[in-house]
Amino acid sequence: KKEYRIAVLPGDGIGPEIMQEAVKVLTLVGEREGVTFVCEEGRIGGIAIDTDGTPLPEETVKLTKQADAVLLGAVGGPKWDQNPGHLRPETGLLGIRKALGLFANIRPATMHSSLVDASSLKPEVVSGVDLIVVRELTGGIYFGEKKRYDGPNGEVAEDQCIYNEAEIERIIRVGFDIARKRQKRLVSVDKANVLESSRLWRKVAERVAADYPDVELSHQLVDSCAMQLVRAPKQFDVIVTENMFGDILSDQAAMLTGSIGMLSSASLAAGSFGLYEPVHGSAPDIAGKGIANPLATILSVAMMLRLSLGMDEAAAAVENAVWAVLEAGHRTGDIATDRSKAIGTVEMGQLVRDEL
Amino acid sequence: KKEYRIAVLPGDGIGPEIMQEAVKVLTLVGEREGVTFVCEEGRIGGIAIDTDGTPLPEETVKLTKQADAVLLGAVGGPKWDQNPGHLRPETGLLGIRKALGLFANIRPATMHSSLVDASSLKPEVVSGVDLIVVRELTGGIYFGEKKRYDGPNGEVAEDQCIYNEAEIERIIRVGFDIARKRQKRLVSVDKANVLESSRLWRKVAERVAADYPDVELSHQLVDSCAMQLVRAPKQFDVIVTENMFGDILSDQAAMLTGSIGMLSSASLAAGSFGLYEPVHGSAPDIAGKGIANPLATILSVAMMLRLSLGMDEAAAAVENAVWAVLEAGHRTGDIATDRSKAIGTVEMGQLVRDEL
Ligand SMILES: CC(C)[C@H](C(=O)O)[C@@H](O)C(=O)O
Ligand SMILES: CC(C)[C@H](C(=O)O)[C@@H](O)C(=O)O
Repeated sequence: KKEYRIAVLPGDGIGPEIMQEAVKVLTLVGEREGVTFVCEEGRIGGIAIDTDGTPLPEETVKLTKQADAVLLGAVGGPKWDQNPGHLRPETGLLGIRKALGLFANIRPATMHSSLVDASSLKPEVVSGVDLIVVRELTGGIYFGEKKRYDGPNGEVAEDQCIYNEAEIERIIRVGFDIARKRQKRLVSVDKANVLESSRLWRKVAERVAADYPDVELSHQLVDSCAMQLVRAPKQFDVIVTENMFGDILSDQAAMLTGSIGMLSSASLAAGSFGLYEPVHGSAPDIAGKGIANPLATILSVAMMLRLSLGMDEAAAAVENAVWAVLEAGHRTGDIATDRSKAIGTVEMGQLVRDEL
Repeated sequence: KKEYRIAVLPGDGIGPEIMQEAVKVLTLVGEREGVTFVCEEGRIGGIAIDTDGTPLPEETVKLTKQADAVLLGAVGGPKWDQNPGHLRPETGLLGIRKALGLFANIRPATMHSSLVDASSLKPEVVSGVDLIVVRELTGGIYFGEKKRYDGPNGEVAEDQCIYNEAEIERIIRVGFDIARKRQKRLVSVDKANVLESSRLWRKVAERVAADYPDVELSHQLVDSCAMQLVRAPKQFDVIVTENMFGDILSDQAAMLTGSIGMLSSASLAAGSFGLYEPVHGSAPDIAGKGIANPLATILSVAMMLRLSLGMDEAAAAVENAVWAVLEAGHRTGDIATDRSKAIGTVEMGQLVRDEL
């Protein structure tokens, strides 16, 4: 019997609640497919700061390194907001990305037809939106050298944005590989009219394009991409961009759909290893109330089955179960038009499992 | 008789056409108000590359330095897109910002009620949007040191993002000063959970806030701001942010209104000196056809009258003339719902002058 080790990091806020439902779905998939998922829990973020005195304990890194894939809930909360940098929940997130070499962040923004009303955009502008933002996740200004010193005009702060060709090439290739399996249109986003790192980015993108003659590559400046995402988001198939721009554009793209409680993401290393998490945060304001939407985390399980474990059919089954539940009209509070009819986290999880 | 010297830089593409209408409006204002505007033309961008071999001739810098304010059309076009950095039109734009110390870019995004249909957002989400993005314009990653060299993983490119307290303080003060005259709500946007320059930014914003107890200051991370601009743009009054984030967010905010041909901007130095330009680009595809919308440039004249020349009433008169023309149903192609009825650049300019 096939066995996979899954590191489960529920994190903070609504993390534990939504993760519980996701793990139940995973267990059911295991029973149906005759596969054992050995789920081992680890701590990250605020809970780890409280328990271990660091947002990313060594133990957690070890656990995840021994796993076939990682499921993450969400990290952060007001309790730790005033902490110094090394004791902040996000530092755990940045740390695990670096420690596991998760250089490729895959963020689909898909407008599911039954949720069109949730968007702040006109139905004719958003219905049919189906794009993926591929974001470089372990380089650029996030991980460059930082400095702080005194100068003649007061304190000075510096962040270095640095990329080498190899780092750019591997993420551009991820973009091309994904586009090849879709509509074969890749938009590489940079600020080549201002930044040196963007000029190198564009040069590498052009070079790699020669290996993908079947994919159409175009370039957009980050400011015009931010405009185009608002104006006509349907024009996009796959967007590939560097870390900081990807942070902004993937969140903007997510919000176009209006249902951020539905969106999942993958952060991949070389090979098949990856970390999977919902796009939304830890939502401390509704934590513990049992009303959080578990669907983004359940859809993260589907992404994991497909991208790290090669279980394409099981992945599709989970996704179809989610769509079926939505089409039957079930909604958690965040996506409900009539909030009085909203159902809770556990109930939503159960409905998905029933459908499976 | 009062006399002002205005440096007029039409630039490329539709620049000359729209500038012509703006200058006519300015001349009319002068006649009405008994003020002489001495308009002196200079070259910048592509036209300067062709004529002077540089996108920013010394002569132009001199001309603008002797002026009371500068009007700019737009720069750039496919003809110069493949040029090396120092021979690109944008380099002229970055150069003039630096040469004139234009550190504060003011970008209003206002949804005029008669243009609500032009937006890709739902009417209830955008109608009433009235926000201003205050962008730092002469610092940060735009003007930090750039490097390119060979390393073990291929070429390496570096951009340095650098800010000192004085640079941050003066732009934060501009944000507070503007907010004070409006709804008194200032959102400072940064990425303080990742960037050292953002942590300094936030610290300075907090310190300066003590001088503005009547203005409510809050902080947003750049990724959540990009989300909130899509989800609920009406929540914003004034946004202040650094150069790169401001480039992205101001363009995103502009596009929310759907009528980028209507938006003007000011780039201010210390004191009252400023450069005024439409937000849209040089639109090479429609250049010379006489169909470009001159209203953003005419509204830039209004901003100049108000912010650099202290002629508040004349500024309001120009703005009201523009709104009246729109309310009477006149539209250029870019904002027309029925394109067959669209009018041309000169006709639109004439209508505004008639109204004045
Ligand atoms: C929490 C933060 C450091 C993180 C990032 O900026 O990468 C988050 O915004 C994300 O997109 O995962
Ligand atoms: C042309 C370019 C260099 C410029 C910028 O990035 O500042 C433009 O996008 C702007 O916003 O004025």
